[in-house]
Amino acid sequence: MMSENISELRQDLVTGEWIVVATGRARRPDDFAKAKHPITSQPPETCPFETLHENAQAIYTAEGKRFLPDGGNRVELDGTWWLKVVSNKYPAFGQGECAVEHAVGPYRFQDGVGVHEVVVTRDHARSIAEMSPGEVAVIIRAYRDRYLALKEEGCVEYISIFHNHGADAGASLEHPHSQIIAISVIPPDISRSLAGSGGYFARTGKCVHCTMIEFDAIDGSRIIYENQDFTVSCPFAPRQAFEVRVFPKRHTPYFETLTEREIALAGDALHQAVARLGRALAGPAYNFFIHTAPTADGQSVAHYHWHLEIIPKTAVWAGFEIGTGIEISTISPEAAAEFLRGILL
Amino acid sequence: MMSENISELRQDLVTGEWIVVATGRARRPDDFAKAKHPITSQPPETCPFETLHENAQAIYTAEGKRFLPDGGNRVELDGTWWLKVVSNKYPAFGQGECAVEHAVGPYRFQDGVGVHEVVVTRDHARSIAEMSPGEVAVIIRAYRDRYLALKEEGCVEYISIFHNHGADAGASLEHPHSQIIAISVIPPDISRSLAGSGGYFARTGKCVHCTMIEFDAIDGSRIIYENQDFTVSCPFAPRQAFEVRVFPKRHTPYFETLTEREIALAGDALHQAVARLGRALAGPAYNFFIHTAPTADGQSVAHYHWHLEIIPKTAVWAGFEIGTGIEISTISPEAAAEFLRGILL
Repeated sequence: MMSENISELRQDLVTGEWIVVATGRARRPDDFAKAKHPITSQPPETCPFETLHENAQAIYTAEGKRFLPDGGNRVELDGTWWLKVVSNKYPAFGQGECAVEHAVGPYRFQDGVGVHEVVVTRDHARSIAEMSPGEVAVIIRAYRDRYLALKEEGCVEYISIFHNHGADAGASLEHPHSQIIAISVIPPDISRSLAGSGGYFARTGKCVHCTMIEFDAIDGSRIIYENQDFTVSCPFAPRQAFEVRVFPKRHTPYFETLTEREIALAGDALHQAVARLGRALAGPAYNFFIHTAPTADGQSVAHYHWHLEIIPKTAVWAGFEIGTGIEISTISPEAAAEFLRGILL
Repeated sequence: MMSENISELRQDLVTGEWIVVATGRARRPDDFAKAKHPITSQPPETCPFETLHENAQAIYTAEGKRFLPDGGNRVELDGTWWLKVVSNKYPAFGQGECAVEHAVGPYRFQDGVGVHEVVVTRDHARSIAEMSPGEVAVIIRAYRDRYLALKEEGCVEYISIFHNHGADAGASLEHPHSQIIAISVIPPDISRSLAGSGGYFARTGKCVHCTMIEFDAIDGSRIIYENQDFTVSCPFAPRQAFEVRVFPKRHTPYFETLTEREIALAGDALHQAVARLGRALAGPAYNFFIHTAPTADGQSVAHYHWHLEIIPKTAVWAGFEIGTGIEISTISPEAAAEFLRGILL
């Protein structure tokens, strides 16, 4: 039933949740026996992102004259770009008929329709933990600008923005990059967050995230850092040891409403979060992602509060976690936050 | 708020789901910077399970005179035990007040109450993929017998049985072992499966798993192996490439109703599944776990159908999967099943 499309969204008949079978990136069955961690270290010579300055095909470019230290000298980078957004060469989603359900026996599936872009920063060896607040802000501005553009495309119900750092976190290339995937279904984790936030609002008349932000500010024990517009904290119920969240203080469901001032302060907050984790855990692999409202307009998600979650790979999810959905964190978020607060940046 | 207990169940205020903060196994904050993969290879001399034959504290023992090949000779093992169940020395759950919710600000938590046991087989270097069907049946019988015993304890709402193989799958010891955790809450993944199965039953009057088993038997493309009482197949909507499930043909929500004949045939089916994955993927790390009904009696889960899921570590869950809950499988389950069917055992 696999068509010529890159991928297929298949529905779990029990839970109703969607998964993706991506055969556009397919490997032969016996390829799965080989390298489980595709890349651990990669010289710039073989990095596909190193040739992006010769590539005119960028969807988005942020200019910036940059210098790299080279011994005692500073070497100016070729060209003036510092960040480019390009199409993913091996997309997980592609063209097709969106939101058309097909059936085979009791099962349902759709074409895996969507857009898959890559946000690449200029320096091969300069990870987000090493970037300045201003550099991180350039990345966040690119996220917002691409979000605003992708929101206007057809068949887009949700836009996922995420960053994988390190092979243990699933990064297939060492060169720092983030990914943006716009898809035609609302993902299950987002549905659950929206439902939970909506239920809390119905019961209390308040935003559940505002409630947590307010209480955590008074309590103090889970706060790592804050500036005028953002807080950086460990959540009361983390999925993993040293999980960190960045919350905007202004209540809005919509990430894309970030103002220029907020972009600068979000850059500062994300810099603080990632740099502290980097020092505390000696350069851990990590993932971060943005949780925001679905793209379709409507007041029905007015109770939601967008935010960013950072999950360092401090443990491997094993049979209990995978089989139950209950995650075990081996340090309390209060102890993790205290440790991260104490890091000197 | 952390008491003297080993762990705390904390509720995610947004989703209502429980997570565990386990400080009984706690490490100091800066320990998290060290070894992410605790054990990759471990000689028998330092393996704590190698001294179990001197230990009279087993909760459960399966006898069996066993011989190990040693060059041209066969060496008889010390003692006659082949499988022992012991208490986990580093339990994730322990004593406490069960099901009593405490609050701090808007947040809710409980003591992490439960029982955590380890099922150890005799041979240090003989993993399940290398065991005979009869040996695997001894393990399944131990699961069932301990399940029946733990079901009678107080504060037990769900019993999770799982096996981690390989450091990449979170196994902290190389010596083959499974774990049984009895806890006082119903895990979110189980709640969702029960709700999905219940919804399907309400709409169609049929068991969703029986429906899939029936259709898959006719369709054939996802079937790997079957015997009189069990099928081994790849699910239509897998979480990971090469995911395999073992289903009993007899409809029952309750794993613990396994008969002696079914135990033998479940041993055969699990042997087929794990041995084929082992050959196909060249000894992959994997997790397997049993999904069964909660322990509390009641006809409300009569629609459910227990089963076993095997998830080989063919990929690392990265930002998209962790951030959305949508898993991407890079081979279709039909291609994976065809490959696994063709493996000669």
